[in-house]
Amino acid sequence: MDRESIEETISAIIDCMRTSNHCFSKSLQEEDVLMVKECIRLTRECADVCALALNALETDSAFAKPIGALCAQVCDTCAVECGRHQMDHCQQCAEACLRCAEACRNLAAA
Amino acid sequence: MDRESIEETISAIIDCMRTSNHCFSKSLQEEDVLMVKECIRLTRECADVCALALNALETDSAFAKPIGALCAQVCDTCAVECGRHQMDHCQQCAEACLRCAEACRNLAAA
Amino acid sequence: MDRESIEETISAIIDCMRTSNHCFSKSLQEEDVLMVKECIRLTRECADVCALALNALETDSAFAKPIGALCAQVCDTCAVECGRHQMDHCQQCAEACLRCAEACRNLAAA
Amino acid sequence: MDRESIEETISAIIDCMRTSNHCFSKSLQEEDVLMVKECIRLTRECADVCALALNALETDSAFAKPIGALCAQVCDTCAVECGRHQMDHCQQCAEACLRCAEACRNLAAA
Repeated sequence: MDRESIEETISAIIDCMRTSNHCFSKSLQEEDVLMVKECIRLTRECADVCALALNALETDSAFAKPIGALCAQVCDTCAVECGRHQMDHCQQCAEACLRCAEACRNLAAA
Repeated sequence: MDRESIEETISAIIDCMRTSNHCFSKSLQEEDVLMVKECIRLTRECADVCALALNALETDSAFAKPIGALCAQVCDTCAVECGRHQMDHCQQCAEACLRCAEACRNLAAA
Repeated sequence: MDRESIEETISAIIDCMRTSNHCFSKSLQEEDVLMVKECIRLTRECADVCALALNALETDSAFAKPIGALCAQVCDTCAVECGRHQMDHCQQCAEACLRCAEACRNLAAA
Repeated sequence: MDRESIEETISAIIDCMRTSNHCFSKSLQEEDVLMVKECIRLTRECADVCALALNALETDSAFAKPIGALCAQVCDTCAVECGRHQMDHCQQCAEACLRCAEACRNLAAA
């Protein structure tokens, strides 16, 4: 990948990490927590895998591709789950997850 | 701190990290998730701070004391919240948090 | 803190996390690794504490202030160490650490 | 996997995480840091991936298998690199990485 593509990937990962953490916190404040319990589980996991992927890209890791593939898988699952709910924080999270998943898939395939 | 005390502290931190993650997952499976939503928030934070403290002790970090003080503070708060609930996973988490908090306070004061 | 200040703090933390990881990787590629061995140790720790602080701010953590105080302390130390070396990656890291330390101190005092 | 196998896997991951962090710190204290610079890079990455795998197992993650596969890959690489050096911390790290890699491969294949 050229430097510009890496920067775009990093940007997508940071956005996804931030949006997932935001959704985690807002979901815990919903009256109907039960409805979003899978979002809570997945957004935590998504934020953690994004943090790993970010470190990998910034440190020229030899494992950037398999980490990118894992990150895409977690983000795709989180996007499906959050996409089922109408709250802004879930919809924004679903969009950020989809963008991050696509960027990470490109990274893994590069 | 002597090596034996450091080993005991590390053991308390690992136990707390594991028990907090277990409580996080089990709380999300409770029918009454709303009741344990603060446990969910705190157990995640507790596990993350324990991971940082563990790394600090294993890598001879110059910041082991302030990290220990922070870990004790988070663990104390998590112990109070989980201690309010009667489920096994919450009671076990509260106990592990109290032991970890005491070990980390001793580390911070050493 | 108002939302604008929190956003500025988050931005300083992200920049510091990225720059620290970059400096970690570049320091390991220096011919004179011995000279920058403390940078390597500190940049890893700095990146890890920044990740914790970022999560805290994004999830409305009750521990944002003590985590901010810890982050400022680690960043200040990393800035001093990296500031002693003339390589671009060290100088950039020192600057990002200073900005992050100041932002986190403001957060801790807010 | 049955509970006993999961406990053994968790134990191997914790041991690998601890030993990798120890090797990271001791490698940075070697006079010939240049010789172990790849150990330093890999032990950090190994400890981080082990932390992710540990969280995944403790929280009944749906991604335990792909995370286990990634962890096995990183641990194998770290074992080869550390196995090339005669210092106790490198040899112990290589052994712990091999045990963790095997446990994580079994997890991924279960």
